Amino acid sequence: MKIIDILFGRPLATWEERAEKIGAAKGIPIFGLDALSSAAYGPEAALALLIPLGMAGVHFVLPITIAILALLTILYFSYRQTIAAYPNGGGSYTVAGENLGPVLGLLAGSALMVDYVLEVAVGIAAGVGALVSALPKLQPHTLALCLGILAILTLMNLRGARSTGAVFMAPTFLFIVCLLTVIGWGVVKVILSGGHPHPVVAPLQLGHATEVLSLWVLLKAFSSGCTAMTGVEAVSNGVAAFKEPRDKSAQLTLTIIIVLLGILLLGIAFLVSAYHIGAADPSVSGYQSVLSQLTAAVGGRGVFYYVTIASILVVLSLSANTGFADFPRLCHNIARDRYLPFLFTLRGRRLIYSSGVYVLAVLAALLLIAFRGVTDRLIPLFAIGAFLAFTLSQAGMVQHWRRTRGKGWRFSMAVNGIGALATGITVCVVLATKFMSGAWITAIVIPLIILLMLAVHRHYRRVAREIAAREILDTGKLVQPIVVLPIPGWNRITAKALRFALSLSTDVYCVHVKNDEGEEPLEPLWKKNVADPLQQAGLPEPKLIQVESPTRRVLGPILDQIDVLEKDNPDRQLMVLLPELVENRWYYYLLHNQRAALLKAMLYLHGAQRIVVANVPWYLEPRQSDTEEPSN
Amino acid sequence: MKIIDILFGRPLATWEERAEKIGAAKGIPIFGLDALSSAAYGPEAALALLIPLGMAGVHFVLPITIAILALLTILYFSYRQTIAAYPNGGGSYTVAGENLGPVLGLLAGSALMVDYVLEVAVGIAAGVGALVSALPKLQPHTLALCLGILAILTLMNLRGARSTGAVFMAPTFLFIVCLLTVIGWGVVKVILSGGHPHPVVAPLQLGHATEVLSLWVLLKAFSSGCTAMTGVEAVSNGVAAFKEPRDKSAQLTLTIIIVLLGILLLGIAFLVSAYHIGAADPSVSGYQSVLSQLTAAVGGRGVFYYVTIASILVVLSLSANTGFADFPRLCHNIARDRYLPFLFTLRGRRLIYSSGVYVLAVLAALLLIAFRGVTDRLIPLFAIGAFLAFTLSQAGMVQHWRRTRGKGWRFSMAVNGIGALATGITVCVVLATKFMSGAWITAIVIPLIILLMLAVHRHYRRVAREIAAREILDTGKLVQPIVVLPIPGWNRITAKALRFALSLSTDVYCVHVKNDEGEEPLEPLWKKNVADPLQQAGLPEPKLIQVESPTRRVLGPILDQIDVLEKDNPDRQLMVLLPELVENRWYYYLLHNQRAALLKAMLYLHGAQRIVVANVPWYLEPRQSDTEEPSN
Repeated sequence: MKIIDILFGRPLATWEERAEKIGAAKGIPIFGLDALSSAAYGPEAALALLIPLGMAGVHFVLPITIAILALLTILYFSYRQTIAAYPNGGGSYTVAGENLGPVLGLLAGSALMVDYVLEVAVGIAAGVGALVSALPKLQPHTLALCLGILAILTLMNLRGARSTGAVFMAPTFLFIVCLLTVIGWGVVKVILSGGHPHPVVAPLQLGHATEVLSLWVLLKAFSSGCTAMTGVEAVSNGVAAFKEPRDKSAQLTLTIIIVLLGILLLGIAFLVSAYHIGAADPSVSGYQSVLSQLTAAVGGRGVFYYVTIASILVVLSLSANTGFADFPRLCHNIARDRYLPFLFTLRGRRLIYSSGVYVLAVLAALLLIAFRGVTDRLIPLFAIGAFLAFTLSQAGMVQHWRRTRGKGWRFSMAVNGIGALATGITVCVVLATKFMSGAWITAIVIPLIILLMLAVHRHYRRVAREIAAREILDTGKLVQPIVVLPIPGWNRITAKALRFALSLSTDVYCVHVKNDEGEEPLEPLWKKNVADPLQQAGLPEPKLIQVESPTRRVLGPILDQIDVLEKDNPDRQLMVLLPELVENRWYYYLLHNQRAALLKAMLYLHGAQRIVVANVPWYLEPRQSDTEEPSN
Repeated sequence: MKIIDILFGRPLATWEERAEKIGAAKGIPIFGLDALSSAAYGPEAALALLIPLGMAGVHFVLPITIAILALLTILYFSYRQTIAAYPNGGGSYTVAGENLGPVLGLLAGSALMVDYVLEVAVGIAAGVGALVSALPKLQPHTLALCLGILAILTLMNLRGARSTGAVFMAPTFLFIVCLLTVIGWGVVKVILSGGHPHPVVAPLQLGHATEVLSLWVLLKAFSSGCTAMTGVEAVSNGVAAFKEPRDKSAQLTLTIIIVLLGILLLGIAFLVSAYHIGAADPSVSGYQSVLSQLTAAVGGRGVFYYVTIASILVVLSLSANTGFADFPRLCHNIARDRYLPFLFTLRGRRLIYSSGVYVLAVLAALLLIAFRGVTDRLIPLFAIGAFLAFTLSQAGMVQHWRRTRGKGWRFSMAVNGIGALATGITVCVVLATKFMSGAWITAIVIPLIILLMLAVHRHYRRVAREIAAREILDTGKLVQPIVVLPIPGWNRITAKALRFALSLSTDVYCVHVKNDEGEEPLEPLWKKNVADPLQQAGLPEPKLIQVESPTRRVLGPILDQIDVLEKDNPDRQLMVLLPELVENRWYYYLLHNQRAALLKAMLYLHGAQRIVVANVPWYLEPRQSDTEEPSN
């Protein structure tokens, strides 16, 4: 157990939970990493779709970013209200489910589940992308690096939130400081140079325009850029994890995250325009990410460059952690409502919903393998789930205000209404522009998940209906069961089982299947060893049923006898005792027939409510020295 | 079951066995195929070792064959006596074991087991070799052809001896007639041509001599040629399968087989000399077997050639059948003496020792795969086992006569003594000449098998010592067991299990592990549904043990409670009842925790003699329409 303790930490008692509550300082790395790190791939994703416009495309980054920031502001106010209204955690699943009905709740839930898995995969893939930009030699190992980071993240998360918070704080703040430095430094240079800065290291050459400007191209760039907003809902989802007063702590955390994200996005967009930096095709050798080009252009490829790139790598990888923080919690919520297997509601040794962590790790690994760890291929699947959840959450909030009609409900409803409208439109834009390049996968997967969850729910309700009747114990007719004991012959194993059978009931039936291959007849042994001593003790003799089996089958005739006994005694329970030799080495099992196990399986499949099967084990004594054996 | 019936035939009752007894006409194909078909590879094996002598080598075939025939004659008389002395089947294992002690018996037995496996592999490989000679296009598919034939043979043998005999008779007699025709026709041609026949189709050119003549080369050729004698013991081994009078039927069969084999070997050797036919290297393209060259040389490549080659192919493949007839029987004999797993003593639906058939098929397949289906690579491993068994069997017979001292025992002893001496010398020769080229494998494998069989025997004796005491049933203190029932909560499954527990014993302990994750407390439910009604009925109330589990473990605390109860009641049996929901679809198991199964496994490993575990199953009713469900 020692190794497990070292890997996963000592088991935590349930009462230790309070200690795991977090404040804003820990809340930013845990719930904000994903949102903040989006700054590292959102602008890049938008620029990638502007490549066909050539040099001209770069200038559209700024207006697109401003549109995104407007949307972000709307979302911010919407989610502030959600946090206040749902201090126990107002994830989209809860908000939509409570206000719009369970099916729309499941729609939000499954959309988020898909998105969290993608978040993990995209985060890791983008982090490794940054690493590969800095060290091109590692490019062939992209997938292996992705999976390695995933494994480390999984292990850390199984240890629980406390340690994760501590691990993530330093790189998150380093990342923020580095990017803010690049932006500040860059902005100063731009101003000093009168708007025409000279890059220290020239960015990659932009290609020629291959397409003319169109609204469609701009909408596509906007859709991709919207990935920069994913993760914003994480705080509202995890309010329950915050220190009291929960809503205030959570709102403070959300404010800091959104402001930082806004500065980063705006700063990057501004500098990219000023330095004429465009996205590159990652499948072409010599690829560099936008942030890599930008940092080098502003500050050159010195120590600072490598520190910045390293912090981006670490933060992107860790951003996946938002998925790990939220996915298991979401699954737990859905499972608590019995739409997912019961297992997701159980907390492991470190108070973490371990099953959710495992499932997330496996799904993310499959996704990384399927898309070979390339961010660009994953991005189109992404964001649609997030924006669907945003929309449903905001729409749910509208319904919430309408129902509760608390103080200032009209204003609150308007805020969330604008949020719902804006994110709703974004969903349509994203779906339309990315449908062919991958969003169709998400559009198929989400309904499938909903169907699965409905089926799970149907099953649980059926079982609950059948078993959960709070019935009063029926105390009538508590008669001993009829005990059936198949005996292959007379030996100590049989004797032990028979004694046990006699201690349970006075109705014991021993079933013996005769084989006519020169076996010793059972009757004389039975009379001498069983019938006579029981008669002397004044105890009832068990019935010995002997069955012929011309085709040497053994189990069939026993099953037939049990059937007969069951039919003849419609109001009695039957207990089948199976004497069994338990070996102390697995390979000894090859030396004995496994009829007891087979008979048990057959009785199990037989499926009669009134039959109970028990093994009466005979454990071989530990092997003594073999010297006592008679020689041959 | 219909498909199984078609494949394997309907199940046979034990009393139908008598009908399976065979006479000489069926005995020749069943027990003689291997011996007779040896004529197809024995001479070839000898000639292969004479290749280095070039043209000169061919002339040594005749003297070598005469030496082999002398040995064959000695064996014939030896085995006639064995058949008479052991009318229930005088396999080498039985004869050596009864007369020379169990270890030498096992030596003979394991040697024969190895040889039977080789027989199957060599038979099939040689048959496919003949086919490949006729149709060189098939050469790349050698291994696949081998395995296909093995599969067909296995299936036929699982159907039982009766059908096998019928299937094998026609090709065996065709083979004998064809080869006798070739020999007769060839001998006539040789005589008519004054000893210098002109081949219709010229045989392959013989290479130049690369070695000088030496006794060593001749001994090697003799050793390889001795493979022609393998299979001779089959009749003595299977006497029990013959019609009454068994010994006469078996002796007649043996006589016919030996005479035919002698004629074939002598005829082939004579013609090979006369036509200057040598062995070819099978790895060189254009390879032709000796019999193929011989038949073409005598009769040309007409219809007769193809009929003959086809009959050789079929018979060699079927010769493997001797292995199938004898290996399972031998395993049964050894297992009856408890040196091999019990399973080998059971007869399947067609009265065949099916386990032996399966094991043989698997081992032969592995051998064919390892040696890629090439006869030449297998031959060196072969024969050593057979001759070891011959020697031990004859030596055993010597001891037998000495012990029984019946009429004419001195003469009988002398006959078997000569047999033992001759075969003993042959073993030494074979071992010495073939050791490096493969016999070492056999020399390692046989002792390993013996060690394994001794270990099996030791285990069986130990178990028998422990359990087989013919004890009289102890009728004292037949008290009800203490029943332990872990209950996760109160529902119909628990209620059913508790009712069952109360019907078994008045000492019922219900163990409930509390988890503090907002679960409903059990006490009020317990009082209302269990304690009160039992009190009213005047029945004893089961003890409710509630355990706290701060780290949310469930099984550990239950096991601890069981431990405590076991220690507190040293003279009582404990019965642990596990209420269990049995699902009607396997995938439903994902939806419920499998704690009952886990607890059961842990109790099993716990290994306490006084604990019996039973599942009380709750079967879900077949799913009704879902329309009755309340809508959301």
